[in-house]
Amino acid sequence: MIDSAPIGGKVLSAMARTPEARQKLREICRIAARVFYEKGYDGASMQDIAEAVGLTKAGLYHHVSSKDLLLFEIMNYGMDILDESVLAKVKDIADPREKLRQTIIGHIDLVVRARDMEITVILHENRSLKGAMRKKINARKKAYIQYLEGLIARVQEQSGVSPKVSPHLAAFAVLGMINWLYQWYHVEGPVTQEEISSAYLDFFFRGLLGSG
Amino acid sequence: MIDSAPIGGKVLSAMARTPEARQKLREICRIAARVFYEKGYDGASMQDIAEAVGLTKAGLYHHVSSKDLLLFEIMNYGMDILDESVLAKVKDIADPREKLRQTIIGHIDLVVRARDMEITVILHENRSLKGAMRKKINARKKAYIQYLEGLIARVQEQSGVSPKVSPHLAAFAVLGMINWLYQWYHVEGPVTQEEISSAYLDFFFRGLLGSG
Repeated sequence: MIDSAPIGGKVLSAMARTPEARQKLREICRIAARVFYEKGYDGASMQDIAEAVGLTKAGLYHHVSSKDLLLFEIMNYGMDILDESVLAKVKDIADPREKLRQTIIGHIDLVVRARDMEITVILHENRSLKGAMRKKINARKKAYIQYLEGLIARVQEQSGVSPKVSPHLAAFAVLGMINWLYQWYHVEGPVTQEEISSAYLDFFFRGLLGSG
Repeated sequence: MIDSAPIGGKVLSAMARTPEARQKLREICRIAARVFYEKGYDGASMQDIAEAVGLTKAGLYHHVSSKDLLLFEIMNYGMDILDESVLAKVKDIADPREKLRQTIIGHIDLVVRARDMEITVILHENRSLKGAMRKKINARKKAYIQYLEGLIARVQEQSGVSPKVSPHLAAFAVLGMINWLYQWYHVEGPVTQEEISSAYLDFFFRGLLGSG
């Protein structure tokens, strides 16, 4: 179980070893995610993406050597954001319940904030990714699920009541609740992010541990 | 609130008015969903779909007049299955809690059964659908959400305790839990469908109503 360390390795293309190149690759990933989101992975060409980024096609290939690899980099970037915006912030929290609470709040924030919405969507439509790249992304997702399972098991232990649901199913239940937000949540809608976080936390912990 | 009637209208193309034509269109939808799932909506051509179905391209166009309309028919078919396999079966259940239980069990069954998996996936990737067709599908989805909200509100009333979560958020929580199953559930995996149904029902009703 990975608990306080960032999850999975960060794989950047050979061109992205300097901080500047890495920053540029992230910008490309954000813009490319939007293009893939709008046109579909198969419908978008490297030419479309180069134009959206404001690079020549050769300029784009300098940063990322194929469309496959670009999709892989976008997904890695999505997992990097999870590490950096959510997991890094909770790593020093000792209390399991508070750590799980803050992980859920951070993950909800990641899914609903508009800036990264396209990346979240692309991250979960990973059918276009093949072979070793697909395995690598799935391993990073799996590490996150195992982190949640471990944390849930500790929360159950700490509660002193006998477990009512397996940590495995509870982890997928909360992931479903959170990740499904992108299907229906609108920043301009009647429900605020704080209302969702608060309601989902209460709902989840009641479902997990019981009590009114 | 729609409660016992099928949700939304069934829109079939002009060619599908006889039972035979309707049956053929459904077969085309099932096969086309698989092709879209594998190649992406933008990556799959009507020629690819015609070949997979075993029709000439002209034969395929006889049943469905465009790729847009085919996608729309697949999504309508997905919602028809929900009406026929889930909602029709619970329509005579009077007790709100039992009706909600059976709706959840039926919806889980729909998502995890392999036969319709591609249709479920396509149904939730509706960015490729535009204009009036998109509105029509969204209206059918919304009618289902309103049905769930109404049922949840009745379960809360019946329970006699003060509501702990809005029916709106509870409906999206359970939809997220169920619809996310396609991301991780494998028929050959260690967790059975019955275990998921049972654990998710307990988890959901505890989250909704409290108590251990």
